Amino acid sequence: MDSRDSLWLEQLRDPDAPAARRALAKIITLLESTRPDHRERAGLLLDALLQRSGPTTRIGISGVPGVGKSTLIEALGLHAIAQGHRVAVLAVDPSSTVHGGSILGDKTRMERLSVHPRAYIRPSPSAGHLGGVASQTREALLACEGAGYDVILVETVGVGQSEVAVAGMTDLFVLMQLPNAGDELQAIKKGVMELADLIWVNKADVDPVATTRACAQMSGALRLQAGLRGGDAAQVQPISALKGDTLAQAWQGVQDWLAQRRADGRWLARRQRQNRDWMWERIHRGLRLAFEADPAVAQQLPDISRRVLAGELASSTAAARLLALHGV
Amino acid sequence: MDSRDSLWLEQLRDPDAPAARRALAKIITLLESTRPDHRERAGLLLDALLQRSGPTTRIGISGVPGVGKSTLIEALGLHAIAQGHRVAVLAVDPSSTVHGGSILGDKTRMERLSVHPRAYIRPSPSAGHLGGVASQTREALLACEGAGYDVILVETVGVGQSEVAVAGMTDLFVLMQLPNAGDELQAIKKGVMELADLIWVNKADVDPVATTRACAQMSGALRLQAGLRGGDAAQVQPISALKGDTLAQAWQGVQDWLAQRRADGRWLARRQRQNRDWMWERIHRGLRLAFEADPAVAQQLPDISRRVLAGELASSTAAARLLALHGV
Repeated sequence: MDSRDSLWLEQLRDPDAPAARRALAKIITLLESTRPDHRERAGLLLDALLQRSGPTTRIGISGVPGVGKSTLIEALGLHAIAQGHRVAVLAVDPSSTVHGGSILGDKTRMERLSVHPRAYIRPSPSAGHLGGVASQTREALLACEGAGYDVILVETVGVGQSEVAVAGMTDLFVLMQLPNAGDELQAIKKGVMELADLIWVNKADVDPVATTRACAQMSGALRLQAGLRGGDAAQVQPISALKGDTLAQAWQGVQDWLAQRRADGRWLARRQRQNRDWMWERIHRGLRLAFEADPAVAQQLPDISRRVLAGELASSTAAARLLALHGV
Repeated sequence: MDSRDSLWLEQLRDPDAPAARRALAKIITLLESTRPDHRERAGLLLDALLQRSGPTTRIGISGVPGVGKSTLIEALGLHAIAQGHRVAVLAVDPSSTVHGGSILGDKTRMERLSVHPRAYIRPSPSAGHLGGVASQTREALLACEGAGYDVILVETVGVGQSEVAVAGMTDLFVLMQLPNAGDELQAIKKGVMELADLIWVNKADVDPVATTRACAQMSGALRLQAGLRGGDAAQVQPISALKGDTLAQAWQGVQDWLAQRRADGRWLARRQRQNRDWMWERIHRGLRLAFEADPAVAQQLPDISRRVLAGELASSTAAARLLALHGV
């Protein structure tokens, strides 16, 4: 192993020291790099860090902008720290690839948590596509665990595929809702609701009546949906980042949910399935990249693509010819 | 080319003759085969058939069981034939892989259309997984077009991924709804509604008041959704398979929608995108199969998988090792 990398690993052994925080930041930056030599170092570092991880809790938190994710994550993070945990906050922000900067996991939005010595906040990477962002966030998550953070909160916004990615890297996926959003808007979120293990109706203190009604409506819809699918219905809970008692209840709800899943084996099964899925995703990506980089393929691809686009060549025939050029 | 295959192609030249129908059935059966020699013959046949296709219309039709798809498809098919078209009905039925038989595209459900000399009905293939069913249906669609059918109706049921597959092989995707389904059930279909270009509220004659209300509700939800996504809202139309006037209106609606899309270039762009996507899907599938069949990979895969499942080896590291064994 590279001497820099050995030093970083050494510095992580005292997680309260400022050097540990800097080493973790440098490791995650290395994990985000696509340079082949960086990728090789990243692989060795990850393997070393995996050996150090103890029991951890990975929680995905989603919700549309304005639902109050930052305020809640800060409050929940501070609560978890008070319970003796170390907390890392990561983000999967698909907009970061468009705008060049992440609107999530921004330290300025979590002023108290970001300066806490037992918290680590990292904004979303900004790779060229969601698959890249998700992949980098998964590795950052492993690095944080190897660096001694045992509660990982992964934040994302309510837009389709990023939720699937975050649910696919966490033990528990929470969807945050507002009590007063219109039925139609709620319904649009149904695809995400199917992923949710818990639903928190936030800002419950602002309008308790609307909150109670929203909780009842969502519970009904979820039970119907779960009946159709034959699974468990997500639990719906009112919450308020500004009220300590609802926050403590929510945290306890997470612990109870996880304890049950650990006891009946579903927690382990989910992690194992995720590990296997991640491996295959990396393999398929590697196969595609090697195919596209093959000079024999690259030479014929433009002409064959043109004929497929023009409808002169069946897509399946074109694929067979290109695969043959690649030696498959 | 194989002499049988040449004969089949020759027999297809007179599409009204019974021999043409038998030849088309045999060609589609060959296309559904996974045997390497069959795949090779299938490729040559498809290329020859592609050269013969004229302008065609591909319409996907989806809806939950009971919505009245068969009755409507039969009526619509007969209407299109009366307008001078030849009509093929195909099906993508994910349940066919489970039950071993297709519940869609069943000739016994379309008694009048199935015996019409200008109609061809083919039930869903029953490959081992949805990707296989979809791929085989795409090729059957091309074969029908090459055999002189210029209106292709592809039927599917309202269950997630099969809709995505059918929307990805048609010019126009129609979702059928009932006027009296509960709001919650409708909402669950939202993911499919996003795919829909047109929505037909069927059995409009049974309860005109409920139909008008359902159309208005859906239009409102779709406009809101389109506003959020920045696209066109799907058009909502009442329809009844038993009333010729609503059927003629629906058919005219399809023609108008397509004419506009042909004029502004979006029809062609969609077909080109589909052709390109199909090619890449086949390529990625071929790469995966070759990887899994590699003896060097197969030997190490069990041990590496075990270590990934146990959390001893990072998924990305495992993928890199397996790819290296495959020479990537």
